[in-house]
Amino acid sequence: MSEYAVAVDLGGTQLRAALVDAQANILLREEVKTAAQAGPDVVVGQIVELVNAVLRQCTDKLILGIGISSPGPLDTKKGIALSLPTISGFTEYPLGAELRLRLPYAVQLENDGIAAAIGEWKFGAGVGFQNVVFVTVSTGIGGGVIVDGHVMRGRRGMAGHVGHMAVVQNGARCNCGNTGCIEAYAAGPAFTARARARAAIEKTLLAKDCESRDVFAAAKMGDDLAVSMVQEEAHYLAMGFTSLLHLYSPDVLIMGGGLSNEFGMLHPLIDTYVQDNAMAAFKSVPIVKAKLGGNAGLVGASRLVFEGI
Amino acid sequence: MSEYAVAVDLGGTQLRAALVDAQANILLREEVKTAAQAGPDVVVGQIVELVNAVLRQCTDKLILGIGISSPGPLDTKKGIALSLPTISGFTEYPLGAELRLRLPYAVQLENDGIAAAIGEWKFGAGVGFQNVVFVTVSTGIGGGVIVDGHVMRGRRGMAGHVGHMAVVQNGARCNCGNTGCIEAYAAGPAFTARARARAAIEKTLLAKDCESRDVFAAAKMGDDLAVSMVQEEAHYLAMGFTSLLHLYSPDVLIMGGGLSNEFGMLHPLIDTYVQDNAMAAFKSVPIVKAKLGGNAGLVGASRLVFEGI
Repeated sequence: MSEYAVAVDLGGTQLRAALVDAQANILLREEVKTAAQAGPDVVVGQIVELVNAVLRQCTDKLILGIGISSPGPLDTKKGIALSLPTISGFTEYPLGAELRLRLPYAVQLENDGIAAAIGEWKFGAGVGFQNVVFVTVSTGIGGGVIVDGHVMRGRRGMAGHVGHMAVVQNGARCNCGNTGCIEAYAAGPAFTARARARAAIEKTLLAKDCESRDVFAAAKMGDDLAVSMVQEEAHYLAMGFTSLLHLYSPDVLIMGGGLSNEFGMLHPLIDTYVQDNAMAAFKSVPIVKAKLGGNAGLVGASRLVFEGI
Repeated sequence: MSEYAVAVDLGGTQLRAALVDAQANILLREEVKTAAQAGPDVVVGQIVELVNAVLRQCTDKLILGIGISSPGPLDTKKGIALSLPTISGFTEYPLGAELRLRLPYAVQLENDGIAAAIGEWKFGAGVGFQNVVFVTVSTGIGGGVIVDGHVMRGRRGMAGHVGHMAVVQNGARCNCGNTGCIEAYAAGPAFTARARARAAIEKTLLAKDCESRDVFAAAKMGDDLAVSMVQEEAHYLAMGFTSLLHLYSPDVLIMGGGLSNEFGMLHPLIDTYVQDNAMAAFKSVPIVKAKLGGNAGLVGASRLVFEGI
């Protein structure tokens, strides 16, 4: 009899649950808008309902357990959500215990960046490597790290907060409280904010309410401001990626998240910086685009169940 | 019969070999000035001679093997010195193979930052923890990381180059080739260079050829320039340390190296920055002074032999 996991991806916008098989195929999927302002009781209720909706459709299947990808910082050793920035009320909240009370299978929790890293490692762009750095660049910047074939977790399971590495001295305040974080400069909102501010005062194809994709589109058409915005974005990313190569020594650095849709335009710029700056022994490490897209977290959460990693 | 390791610490200035027991006691020690400009053949000859000098004094003892701490970047998986910045001629040099040919016991090589981290983890300020970041601040900045009870090595054994994380955008060129590295701002030479440059033009107790220790001494006497130099140094270190907390999630961050002699003065300044900047869940991680001083590398190298880690 085939074995399956139920994987949950709790996001600030969408909450998804899926039935995943041992080959990482997503066989069915349920999705609702996260009640991000309604408090933990309501969100836990949503998770339970969504998991049950999946389970009701597969009463004939052998379910091994439930893996949950959640925004962090999350103490995965104790199952405690420490302070979720995008979902209100989850402060020192015993998410693991509350879910275990209400769900009919074993539950494993993981920080979303680490879950997605596991997904890419096992079934995406990191297959076959022992050392993987995964960076997702989207509304925020997150990630996870595999070193020596081992998922790096650290104290309270919080290792790999790659978005909260400071790259600018005395820099902008990040949502996390730190100053100068790469998230505060290279995540989507910072990129868009810079483009909008300059679009308001410079000659450009860009509108004052442009989105990230508009900037890349205008850059492809040769718009000077848009080109310089893309170069600046690549500069921040490359500066951070170079540090991550030195810090973790991966076999591969994988970029995911919304901005990786523009990887083709960003990568040559990033690569030029890395060739100019990385220590010689690190220059040849490939920087590649993620393969699983928005499913990386679901796949990774399912691997927690299948592999107990 | 008690068991012993011979540990070697290859530095840019001094080359040391020691007999170390299983409790990390250093029972005898030999030392010479490294022939840093003479090329690998001469340096390998020095290592062999020094190890043999130790071995000649303990023919009655059971020697398990030889552990060697060397500057990096070093591919410890293949035993290849990739490009040692402080010792000339070691470029893609098969250090492990050359030593194994000439030494009468099994030889294990380790990057010096990782060796010192292992020493502090097993017998110093990291005892009892599963997650340790060790940072040595001296002529350069190096270190090593233990995560989940596992020594982080990564591709080619080069993980944990914590000194080559960029903290200043478009910053100064580091010896490693990167721009804006914390080593280029917070290592001893950068600290001293800033102090000297300002001492040449500002009212201060500091001489134009002051050394690090002079700056700290003058700061203790209330010299305004010296105080601001120490504050600036603490700022760079704290900025880097905060990122390292987020990146590795250690139980403890250990500062070693020459500048840790001034830990008492630096730590309150570093702690203030961390409390103001680190993500809430990371603020309580202790930042402590290393305990083994200059012996951390020798002790760590001996643990490679005793524990095979």
